[in-house]
Amino acid sequence: MAVGHYQTSFSAVNGIRVASANAGIGSDDSPDLVLFELCPGSTSVGVFTQSHFSAAPVQVARAHLIEGPARYLLVNSGNANAATGAQGLRDARACCQAVAVQGKVKPQQVLPFSTGVIGEALPTEPIMNALPDMFAGLHEDHWLDAARGIMTTDTRPKIASRQLKLCGQLVTLTGIAKGAGMIQPNMATMLSFIATDAQISEPLLQEMLSSSVTSSFNRITVDSDTSTNDACMLIASGQAGDLLDDCQQELADFQDALTDLMLELAQGLVRDGEGATKFVTVHVEQGESEQQCLAIAFSIANSPLIKTALFASDANWGRIVMAIGKTDVQLDVESLDIYINDLCLMRSGTKAIEYEEADGANAMALDDIVIRVVLNCGACSETVWTSDLSLDYVKINAEYRT
Amino acid sequence: MAVGHYQTSFSAVNGIRVASANAGIGSDDSPDLVLFELCPGSTSVGVFTQSHFSAAPVQVARAHLIEGPARYLLVNSGNANAATGAQGLRDARACCQAVAVQGKVKPQQVLPFSTGVIGEALPTEPIMNALPDMFAGLHEDHWLDAARGIMTTDTRPKIASRQLKLCGQLVTLTGIAKGAGMIQPNMATMLSFIATDAQISEPLLQEMLSSSVTSSFNRITVDSDTSTNDACMLIASGQAGDLLDDCQQELADFQDALTDLMLELAQGLVRDGEGATKFVTVHVEQGESEQQCLAIAFSIANSPLIKTALFASDANWGRIVMAIGKTDVQLDVESLDIYINDLCLMRSGTKAIEYEEADGANAMALDDIVIRVVLNCGACSETVWTSDLSLDYVKINAEYRT
Repeated sequence: MAVGHYQTSFSAVNGIRVASANAGIGSDDSPDLVLFELCPGSTSVGVFTQSHFSAAPVQVARAHLIEGPARYLLVNSGNANAATGAQGLRDARACCQAVAVQGKVKPQQVLPFSTGVIGEALPTEPIMNALPDMFAGLHEDHWLDAARGIMTTDTRPKIASRQLKLCGQLVTLTGIAKGAGMIQPNMATMLSFIATDAQISEPLLQEMLSSSVTSSFNRITVDSDTSTNDACMLIASGQAGDLLDDCQQELADFQDALTDLMLELAQGLVRDGEGATKFVTVHVEQGESEQQCLAIAFSIANSPLIKTALFASDANWGRIVMAIGKTDVQLDVESLDIYINDLCLMRSGTKAIEYEEADGANAMALDDIVIRVVLNCGACSETVWTSDLSLDYVKINAEYRT
Repeated sequence: MAVGHYQTSFSAVNGIRVASANAGIGSDDSPDLVLFELCPGSTSVGVFTQSHFSAAPVQVARAHLIEGPARYLLVNSGNANAATGAQGLRDARACCQAVAVQGKVKPQQVLPFSTGVIGEALPTEPIMNALPDMFAGLHEDHWLDAARGIMTTDTRPKIASRQLKLCGQLVTLTGIAKGAGMIQPNMATMLSFIATDAQISEPLLQEMLSSSVTSSFNRITVDSDTSTNDACMLIASGQAGDLLDDCQQELADFQDALTDLMLELAQGLVRDGEGATKFVTVHVEQGESEQQCLAIAFSIANSPLIKTALFASDANWGRIVMAIGKTDVQLDVESLDIYINDLCLMRSGTKAIEYEEADGANAMALDDIVIRVVLNCGACSETVWTSDLSLDYVKINAEYRT
């Protein structure tokens, strides 16, 4: 299942070439290996999972990113190379070494990424074997194949582009992402790769990535679980015009475009969430603090009882009350209002006088639903996005070996 | 669905009489109203939900418990009288008033409890109408009917008794509990009523209740959700012998029996968890602190991905790694071992050399499963109990209006 539309068009990014292949890491014949080549002078920044069990490729990518500058990104699906100990680190480094030899760069200029089964050794042989053809196939137009190559339980690729004029020069941003389950990224995201041809220095680029991640990938949840392999990379090839570091207005425009693009990818993950039949926006407003609004929003977005009610299209606002009630933030329940879309279900802590079950059922029948909680105690607001908990979520995860 | 055995035998408690009835609050013809009568001189203590939206009966019971001494407890299922505002408080007090008139006590000596749909007005009329017959039917032997009368999505009653000799006198403890979903009690529990004929003073009784709740009801989770109506009452009728307050050994024995009884009830809730096909003990040991062990245990017990793997009898230890990894406690992953029952799956942060998939599948095929995580960094340990996430959990909650 998946909710709503998705798109497959994109704009190539000057200086970034992509290739993908079916190396035979997973059991099926869909693409499972992706290679990005970054032109000399590219700047790369990333954010990674906060899991204690950060996977071997995450550890190696973090280290190589510091040594850099990165020239290649190698991404495989079908195996996470996580909880694999010293062997896992050796395997990740061996893959970097193989790419480095063929790309004529240092191993430290190659960043590895993996997603798939946790706890199994990475099969490096098929990866090595696939590399020569991938090098031969590198092209600026291969982003959509890459979006397909990093999928696991995803049912469709997630790709997005933005273009804007900065200092008279057309700048492109293009990104891909994967992930449908084990999704509540923590200060990071599922795998996502975004490139631009703008020229921005590394510290500033890192700051912009972190800022955009906070309001996109860090605001989504499918099942409250956090992967061992989350990573989000932002690459600036610098092929479009001069350094933007001192152009305040241009940087602000770029940041907006970046957040917008990442939000599209993040919402794409939720729309394609495992078993999803609803796309749900949880908006908490007029709160005292960001932390208060977020705690309430995530409590609603992660409640199994709310998520099953959403699956049933049941306007069960008692469960929303329950999920708000169980948070450990300060709260005045008697000033609290709850809406589904524009329909008021609860006003000042009790059922809205005008509320009728039939109206609730109509509101819940839609695929795209907004749950809005008004705290009436301040000026802060926060939004998170989630999907429902369907029979298919259980089927998928009872059958698929993460 | 439900896992394992349950029992229906119990011992009556001197000084405590019970009655139940089908008052017609819910839509079916199962019992939905329960009345407890406590003999004069009884001591009552309770712990209640920490939800911001504590229900009207919870608020009234808390207040009346202070004014007391309690002589009647009135419990209904089918309607939670939660998020019902001022009207909800009036309704709860009206029920107390009606019981008080017929029982010839003050309204403040009646404690109300409700469980069922949130956000709907409590139908007081059928409750009032049912009271005369209930008063006529009060009897010390009616505990099992009461256990049935407080059920909602429960498929079977939860009742347990303990007897022990204290100062040469036989003392009885008997308790009932309900709850199958919206179960992760927070400093309280689902509805549970426990009585003893021992004589213990109120401050000490409260302390003993809180202590036993911590290691029983506060260590279970079905779906991580916390009810608005949780309450656990302990009543001492004082009919068996003298005050025990100064008998250290007897108090320790009593505390053990109380914890043991409450653990049986709490585990009974998990075994009858909504859609449960597995009863899972999560034991985290050799940790640095209680807080560290508990965070890891609850992260495992509440992970949708682990719970679906349990449903599939899939020894998917990668998901256990994931759930440990996402906690925000200090942790050395390289010294960490994971067992299912006696089978070692992971040793020192990576797959155990001797581990075979077939052994994992055998271990997971059982209904009762122990997930054991050894942190190897201290002397603390904690245990929580949970069930799996099955197709039936989704069906039940997509169909049932909480």
